[in-house]
Amino acid sequence: VIQQLGVVGLGLLGGSVAKAARAQGLAREIVGVGRDPSRLAPAVADGTLDRVSTDLAGGLAASDFVLLAVPVRTIESLLPPVWRAVPDGAIVTDVGSTKGAIVRAAERLATGRPLAFVGGHPLAGSEQSGYGVARADLFRGAVVILTPTDATAPGPLKTVTAFWEALGARVSVLDPETHDRAVAAISHLPHLVACALVDGVARFEPAALDLAARGFKDTTRIAAADARMWEEIFLANREALGLGLRAFRAALETLERLIDAGDGDALRAALDAIKTRREALR
Amino acid sequence: VIQQLGVVGLGLLGGSVAKAARAQGLAREIVGVGRDPSRLAPAVADGTLDRVSTDLAGGLAASDFVLLAVPVRTIESLLPPVWRAVPDGAIVTDVGSTKGAIVRAAERLATGRPLAFVGGHPLAGSEQSGYGVARADLFRGAVVILTPTDATAPGPLKTVTAFWEALGARVSVLDPETHDRAVAAISHLPHLVACALVDGVARFEPAALDLAARGFKDTTRIAAADARMWEEIFLANREALGLGLRAFRAALETLERLIDAGDGDALRAALDAIKTRREALR
Repeated sequence: VIQQLGVVGLGLLGGSVAKAARAQGLAREIVGVGRDPSRLAPAVADGTLDRVSTDLAGGLAASDFVLLAVPVRTIESLLPPVWRAVPDGAIVTDVGSTKGAIVRAAERLATGRPLAFVGGHPLAGSEQSGYGVARADLFRGAVVILTPTDATAPGPLKTVTAFWEALGARVSVLDPETHDRAVAAISHLPHLVACALVDGVARFEPAALDLAARGFKDTTRIAAADARMWEEIFLANREALGLGLRAFRAALETLERLIDAGDGDALRAALDAIKTRREALR
Repeated sequence: VIQQLGVVGLGLLGGSVAKAARAQGLAREIVGVGRDPSRLAPAVADGTLDRVSTDLAGGLAASDFVLLAVPVRTIESLLPPVWRAVPDGAIVTDVGSTKGAIVRAAERLATGRPLAFVGGHPLAGSEQSGYGVARADLFRGAVVILTPTDATAPGPLKTVTAFWEALGARVSVLDPETHDRAVAAISHLPHLVACALVDGVARFEPAALDLAARGFKDTTRIAAADARMWEEIFLANREALGLGLRAFRAALETLERLIDAGDGDALRAALDAIKTRREALR
């Protein structure tokens, strides 16, 4: 059992972790850290948090397990003060959607003060955000990717794995770079494309948006997500995203060429192969 | 009341129209026409159809209201035989996702034999297809676009409007070219982009598809749709689709440039504007 769980950032993910940890009795005490007291208050009012702090150093001074649940670049910038704040032996983990830069930054800090950092990423977001939509069952059945490296000790990795499994998640392990390419492919690229689709259609035929049916709404649902969070993800993972974009553009051009050529048979064969790929995901 | 409703093509849309017309008692008799008797049999067995025919001319010889519910290029190719088959005074309509070429073809035929054609397009598809997924309530609350022209008589337009409204749909009227641009924007472009996304990710990081969560699945759901139907739509509407693609590419490039430049503030502002656009659709 964790003595004191420190959660930095009480949005959808941080709030859901705190609620789920409370529901499962995973920690004796749960402390919430955030910049804005009014945004932390609901989590105290509903009994999720025992205590809140707007001061990182004070808030985490007794936390043996710290979860960073803020946008990815903010995670990176908070690592040095977190490193100074937490007690010896603490385990630090996060929920950031990109892992390479965060894990490297933590490993640099660990050469100065040896603390256990385990990078994590629950694939359980939503286009909604904020504590108001946090729920204790958010991670039930979700995949959580952990990104240990050669420098990660087995004990903390086991602890963090057990933590997520107790919240109902299935844990997968990838190295940080493989993780970043994988999420560029299945999350960041689709997100960017969905955003461009909304913007492109708004430029091309704004009046048509009134006719948008389920197909358009599903395809672009994620474009309603939090702009700050995604700004940071796109910037943090721009390299892998750029490679994904190149593959996407090539695929789009292939289809467009078949359409322009009026080559129905080849177009149908390509669409059939894509249909089979997509159906395999269900 | 329609004396005999002739439905050509008993897939998701044709089957759902037949079921709904039966449930609402909109026709004294319903005849189904298709090439494959085994695919028509379930609609007879469940009482939706009174009679089936694999012969277009024989099947529609007494139909005063004909609905064409086959892929768009097939609709175009069936118009001449339909024109010869139906009795005087019949109303012919369709459910094709593109309207320009179909409406023009019908108007050419009407100069020879004056028959009423009203182009129609229910925005109520799905990635699933076939009579097995047809349902009487498919059009409840859906938008159906009708595309009359100066050559369309008010009587038949009123009849077709009342028909769809009796099935629970809201009818919108657009001219065929405006319709084709609008659906290029909100349906055909998103479909092509979703297909390219599945194909691009499969080329870039096939292993990552195993990690695909709700975001990727929603964004690409429509890529599992019937390949034949979409081959015909893309080819029939390639001109408007090309214009939509150009706008999409411009939007994508704008976002990519902001990412490459590391311009977080401008990127966030762009994503925020897109979020607002998308949220307005709910």
